[in-house]
Amino acid sequence: MPRREITGFSNPTVKFLRSLRDKKHRRREGKFLAEGLRLLTDARESGRLPEMLVAARDRDPHPLLAELESAVLAAGGDVVETSADILGKITGKDNPQAVTGVFAEWDTGLAAIDRAASPIWLVAQAMRDPGNLGTMLRTADAVGAGGLILIDDCADPFSAEAIRASMGAVFTQAIAQARWEEFLPWLRSAPGQLVAASLRDAVPYRGAPYAAPCFILIGNESRGLPEAYEMACDLRVTMPMKGRADSLNAAVAGAVLAYEVLASLGG
Amino acid sequence: MPRREITGFSNPTVKFLRSLRDKKHRRREGKFLAEGLRLLTDARESGRLPEMLVAARDRDPHPLLAELESAVLAAGGDVVETSADILGKITGKDNPQAVTGVFAEWDTGLAAIDRAASPIWLVAQAMRDPGNLGTMLRTADAVGAGGLILIDDCADPFSAEAIRASMGAVFTQAIAQARWEEFLPWLRSAPGQLVAASLRDAVPYRGAPYAAPCFILIGNESRGLPEAYEMACDLRVTMPMKGRADSLNAAVAGAVLAYEVLASLGG
Repeated sequence: MPRREITGFSNPTVKFLRSLRDKKHRRREGKFLAEGLRLLTDARESGRLPEMLVAARDRDPHPLLAELESAVLAAGGDVVETSADILGKITGKDNPQAVTGVFAEWDTGLAAIDRAASPIWLVAQAMRDPGNLGTMLRTADAVGAGGLILIDDCADPFSAEAIRASMGAVFTQAIAQARWEEFLPWLRSAPGQLVAASLRDAVPYRGAPYAAPCFILIGNESRGLPEAYEMACDLRVTMPMKGRADSLNAAVAGAVLAYEVLASLGG
Repeated sequence: MPRREITGFSNPTVKFLRSLRDKKHRRREGKFLAEGLRLLTDARESGRLPEMLVAARDRDPHPLLAELESAVLAAGGDVVETSADILGKITGKDNPQAVTGVFAEWDTGLAAIDRAASPIWLVAQAMRDPGNLGTMLRTADAVGAGGLILIDDCADPFSAEAIRASMGAVFTQAIAQARWEEFLPWLRSAPGQLVAASLRDAVPYRGAPYAAPCFILIGNESRGLPEAYEMACDLRVTMPMKGRADSLNAAVAGAVLAYEVLASLGG
């Protein structure tokens, strides 16, 4: 499809793009928005191209943007030009970035996870803060994890806030969504060690017997993990808590543990 | 001062309390708000009482709230009852918690820092996200740090978002605010090791020669640390980055490093 231009706020494409700010519409359409040249370049370098690129008519020329446009057109995608005002309406920002892309969500079933592809996997249970999910994706990328598995009702990893916090890592990581009742049989169908940060019957996290592929399970921000989930783990580890608090921020706990596992497995 | 009641939205106390949601007013008044019984109980157990407690008239009785009220009155503070609507107006929330406290900010000069009190100190430079500051305070508490030192223009550690993210740790930690030009001479006036996470001329963060008191310096979320600041450090360490990204979330980097320092120093 060729380059085209949108000039009206009431254009159906504008309405469609705006609707993707809402989780319900993202879910129904199976598409999401990612904003900014840096994020879109990260996506392209990770092998993910937007189906549609929406760029401000008065943008400054940039070689990376030109490359991105060519790649989208070559892949049969759509390049749309519009005003900064309409871009702002689409993204809900007063100062929108000069370019936004519409991506198709990828397969997020457990079947899409190749556990042999990486020694480390992160697993989040009922994590409600999209910023925490994005931060976990960023950490997952940094430790060379294969992806993030979302158990039970988590925030949407394709929300603008999660994508932004992931700093592009959302495009490098496999993402799966599953109920615990599906996840556990899947995990047990092949080798894999499930590790939880826990206060129950736990060993110190330093020097614990981690084994690849290691699945690091982090629970809900307020409630932590259900006891039954913890007890289903192969290994429960505990981090020193020297102060008044008995827990860390969920994304922080996941990162401290992931770096320990990485070091333990020789990374 | 005895218990009293506020019934009108235009009451000057309501206006004063509302104004504390704004950084400029907090700075001018030297006071801040902390919301919720859990946070206020954490504060009390850390030896910090609000000057004024504002409670919903129709709150459920709770022994911790009764203790808190008694403690505030005994210390000469003020206990105010009001409607849930007015509490919502004060805190800016549709569903406010049943109780909010007004605290005096404490001394945040470098002179308030007793470096011998702890082997670990966190130092944030130009950190703009109050959630990151709060998360760093929570981590600081967990690793038994003495406090958080804020260099250059950081977000306000007494903002509602920072306090909430700290999960009460704001009350357990010393907080100092300083320009780099003040901080460095202060640091060099006594023993203290300054450590930065860095890619420049750095050694692996695992097994690096950390020494107490160890000051862990974390830079701005987007730009990292200025080169001159990094070069002024006694030790530059690097964490493995196995993926596309070359950095972690600032609060995550601080936590991974702080836990490594804690382990290295025998914690």
